[in-house]
Amino acid sequence: MSEPPIGDVFGEMIRDAYAVRTGVGPRPLAGGRVPRPVIEVIERDDGLINGAPADHYLGEPEEWQPHDHRALRLCRGQVLDIGTGAGRTAVELQRRGMAVTGLDTSPGAIEIARRRGLRDTVVTTIDAYASKAATRYDTFLLLGNNLGLLESAERAPVFLAALARLARPGARIVAQGTDPYGTTDPVHAEYHRHNRERGRIGGQLRLRLRYRRLATEWFDYLNCSPAELEKLLDGTGWRLKSIDDQDRPYYLAVMELIT
Amino acid sequence: MSEPPIGDVFGEMIRDAYAVRTGVGPRPLAGGRVPRPVIEVIERDDGLINGAPADHYLGEPEEWQPHDHRALRLCRGQVLDIGTGAGRTAVELQRRGMAVTGLDTSPGAIEIARRRGLRDTVVTTIDAYASKAATRYDTFLLLGNNLGLLESAERAPVFLAALARLARPGARIVAQGTDPYGTTDPVHAEYHRHNRERGRIGGQLRLRLRYRRLATEWFDYLNCSPAELEKLLDGTGWRLKSIDDQDRPYYLAVMELIT
Repeated sequence: MSEPPIGDVFGEMIRDAYAVRTGVGPRPLAGGRVPRPVIEVIERDDGLINGAPADHYLGEPEEWQPHDHRALRLCRGQVLDIGTGAGRTAVELQRRGMAVTGLDTSPGAIEIARRRGLRDTVVTTIDAYASKAATRYDTFLLLGNNLGLLESAERAPVFLAALARLARPGARIVAQGTDPYGTTDPVHAEYHRHNRERGRIGGQLRLRLRYRRLATEWFDYLNCSPAELEKLLDGTGWRLKSIDDQDRPYYLAVMELIT
Repeated sequence: MSEPPIGDVFGEMIRDAYAVRTGVGPRPLAGGRVPRPVIEVIERDDGLINGAPADHYLGEPEEWQPHDHRALRLCRGQVLDIGTGAGRTAVELQRRGMAVTGLDTSPGAIEIARRRGLRDTVVTTIDAYASKAATRYDTFLLLGNNLGLLESAERAPVFLAALARLARPGARIVAQGTDPYGTTDPVHAEYHRHNRERGRIGGQLRLRLRYRRLATEWFDYLNCSPAELEKLLDGTGWRLKSIDDQDRPYYLAVMELIT
């Protein structure tokens, strides 16, 4: 079989998940008639493939995990929600009267975020935004495991420098990550070991997403421990202020700009 | 990325789905700690990929679709449940005091069917079973869309001849199929058209299943209309007795051996 075409996988998926949740608009049907749940397909470069229901990207606050609520209480001032997706948390911040910009690279996801009421949105990469935006931010929000956007030891300082360029004095990053090393699953333990042998961080996942006939390019997505995170911050101008690991293996990290 | 290794995809998946449903035994965990739903990943040869929750393979009668209940009322005498999987319907027939054999090519699925109490099981293909089995059957059951096991215009007569060899006089096939042609989804409509251009039946799907690191070989699985089914029966010694399409696009077909 040939390689699937590259496209806005996340946007197509979010659009369908939104149609299934609201019952409005065309949506995927089993047998051409019965609505079916929208499933995100995630391929890893060791051949592991996982499906996960996509509906959680649209969860209302009462459906969230506890750390999402704690994360929002750590926000202050002007907020940039990075990888805002369908605007799950950004819409709630806006509802609370906070100034929030939702940034995502997926046009389809931003279309749904806007339809859900998010007013200030931007479709671009963080790098492009840092070189053109006039606004400066007090809080950078990386929820839904988006600490993973640090990607790798090579990418993390570049990403963090972009945030520093967008930062007001005293700015903070509030990020949700996953410590992957508690697993006893040999498929994951072996993957971590193989990564380290290749000079990568153990939880540096090489992934692509697929939805229906589309795929993304392969990309790195980082699951790291708090200790690994602290090491990645070295020399970036950001320091680790706190870790909340009440919902292990998930954690909330707060990082501050060194003044 | 290299091709995934071939293995008992269905069995591994059913084993995990059973562990998730019962809470007993090792099961896939998100972040190494949180149980996650087991998702079946289905690839089609046009690059379409779909995920579907696997838990329905283990559904108790109160969770079934209405046509499953109607199908069981059409069973009589000695029953061969073909593609029995985790024994969802075979266990229920046994509970009702009927004589039922569960056949599947997946050792892992049969292991779970036995653990759920199914007594008479066989791990083999229908072809191998037809050439060695001593038992003869009054009813052949093809539920869970297993009319799809007819595969193609080439395979259907071979499959039906195997059933005829295993049949007692007056035997019937009770099969659940899906009429795929009600769809307005261009991805499916185009696939049907492309199939016909290649000399295949419109709904003759070319699929493989994937679960975690394993894949099946590519295989044909047939979604056909009742009219197409009737044509496939021509000259096979089986005739279409009735179609129940109350739950369209799904239908129950009863076929009888011509005496």
